[in-house]
Amino acid sequence: MSDSFQRQQRFVHQVIGHQLPNHNKLAPLKRQGHGIAPVNIALSKYWGKRDTILNLPMNGSVSISLPGLGTETTLTLTPISENSPHPIDSVQLNGESLSDDNPFCIRLTDFLELFRPENHTFTIHTHNTVPTAAGLASSASGYAALVLALNDLFQWQLPPQKLSLLARLGSGSASRSLYSGFAIWHKGEQPDGLDSYAEPIATQWPELCIGLVKVDVQQKPISSTTGMQNTVNTCDLYQAWPAQAEKNMQTILEAIEQKNFEQLGQTAEHNALSMHATMMATWPPIVYWQPESLAAMQTVWHLRKQGIAVYFTMDAGPNLKLLFLETQKPAIQQAFGETEVIQPFKS
Amino acid sequence: MSDSFQRQQRFVHQVIGHQLPNHNKLAPLKRQGHGIAPVNIALSKYWGKRDTILNLPMNGSVSISLPGLGTETTLTLTPISENSPHPIDSVQLNGESLSDDNPFCIRLTDFLELFRPENHTFTIHTHNTVPTAAGLASSASGYAALVLALNDLFQWQLPPQKLSLLARLGSGSASRSLYSGFAIWHKGEQPDGLDSYAEPIATQWPELCIGLVKVDVQQKPISSTTGMQNTVNTCDLYQAWPAQAEKNMQTILEAIEQKNFEQLGQTAEHNALSMHATMMATWPPIVYWQPESLAAMQTVWHLRKQGIAVYFTMDAGPNLKLLFLETQKPAIQQAFGETEVIQPFKS
Repeated sequence: MSDSFQRQQRFVHQVIGHQLPNHNKLAPLKRQGHGIAPVNIALSKYWGKRDTILNLPMNGSVSISLPGLGTETTLTLTPISENSPHPIDSVQLNGESLSDDNPFCIRLTDFLELFRPENHTFTIHTHNTVPTAAGLASSASGYAALVLALNDLFQWQLPPQKLSLLARLGSGSASRSLYSGFAIWHKGEQPDGLDSYAEPIATQWPELCIGLVKVDVQQKPISSTTGMQNTVNTCDLYQAWPAQAEKNMQTILEAIEQKNFEQLGQTAEHNALSMHATMMATWPPIVYWQPESLAAMQTVWHLRKQGIAVYFTMDAGPNLKLLFLETQKPAIQQAFGETEVIQPFKS
Repeated sequence: MSDSFQRQQRFVHQVIGHQLPNHNKLAPLKRQGHGIAPVNIALSKYWGKRDTILNLPMNGSVSISLPGLGTETTLTLTPISENSPHPIDSVQLNGESLSDDNPFCIRLTDFLELFRPENHTFTIHTHNTVPTAAGLASSASGYAALVLALNDLFQWQLPPQKLSLLARLGSGSASRSLYSGFAIWHKGEQPDGLDSYAEPIATQWPELCIGLVKVDVQQKPISSTTGMQNTVNTCDLYQAWPAQAEKNMQTILEAIEQKNFEQLGQTAEHNALSMHATMMATWPPIVYWQPESLAAMQTVWHLRKQGIAVYFTMDAGPNLKLLFLETQKPAIQQAFGETEVIQPFKS
């Protein structure tokens, strides 16, 4: 057992505590757990880990969840019988069985190893309503749904904050996908990672719209995990990122509280561009942008010059997420055509 | 007279010293001076001033001049006669007369004010063989040529280092355009700016090629001067730039000395992307890239994956400058078609 695994297992025990013995109450043959979680879009971004084993971030982040887009996961636990000499987990993603050397499959079963009762295998059926790894944070909704399914399967009855801690261990931004609406993921200070969880922000903002500009839904050239680690290791400009990100987060929290849309939009766009700046200043360079991404940005800047309050944010991928208020919806749809518009607080 | 002008005039006097009285030896009616200077491409960039009046940079930089591309300037000095009650300088750029409220014209005559003998006007004929303000550093060759024309006109007979100081006052990167081949512009330490000049680097590198990928030759959306000042003022990530730029400069000097092309190319591309990163992380964002710029970068990265050693650098504009060795010329021309290729040491 590796040191990393032992640290992660210690963390899981600290979070779940006395509830782990519930594993022993399993029905003898088969049990199922179910979880569903939304994707979330960071308004101030997570980029860079201070602890790669426990997924502890360099900085806090704030997000908005998108209702209707996310992941639904069913976990089935099967005891290993004498008839299955090489029992392995099986993973179905969007109805297709994945081979067990698939990187997604390996990462998932590595994570499940932390929760596995002796002599059992997991069958995972997971369904994304967003393209996997297209920068619409499907790993966030994926690990949040998985942790909810585990909670259901083992009947832990953990509060959302603790589920957020567990989801974080699978994928940092998954910590924020336990909630609808706005959420804040606290950076935390403790080396044990128990104070680095997300919690919901109560504010409702019915007029707020998110427009999805889909540039490319292909697999990303480099995973966020690898990308952010390369940035931390080789990007000199990154030195200033954690402080900027924390500052941006506070400004965004204030903007949400005051429903100050200009402040929200400006800070979110500035924060996203700054994150992408740290990627570009990494060697080898990390550029998730496509020419069409840049063309879409130029359209946004052009609209702003015309007095239309629209901003964008981008995650580790080529797609833009537009931020605007309901009153601008016709102008945005005219400029961007087929853009899908979501009102997180109005669905 | 403004404080800025007085500081600049003091600087000019310090550089030219006892030679200024030569102004008095002017022929009574008319004299001409002539200057010609190449554009230069920074391999490690200048971005940000520590002194905006004297154009003192935050960091040193290294460049390569492009023979055959540059500026040719003729200065004519005319005494003001009684027949010319409102005598003003006149500027011709590429054969066209500029109106005196043209920003280029204002900047030029403001600079010439520092050298003007009493009761004289200047007529400036300047010809660029590169598009003005298209990111191919025409202001660099422009101010270098102008200073050479002043030196010729007033017969100062100043050494290149002193001319470099004067050219710097007009446009920072012009300090490097006094030379052919490689040049280094020292950051300097003194508040009076007398140690912030460029000098040539002796190394010849005949195999070195520069490919010009012209994406857009329109006027830039924001001048370098304004752009870099906004970066210094609003970009948190910029904090780490001066140290990175100095480090990159040393690495490039070493690469030139050792003719280590991989080291030169990697460092130049990393440095250019890092400069553009500081621009993007500025608010409002400064993005000189066009979708076609990004497409050209992707072609470069694709070629590298195929084992072709080609790198790029970019100035404050959308165009790419490719760096490669002569042996790769056919591959580059196949991939980029109409790219103009310059061998700075072979023409």
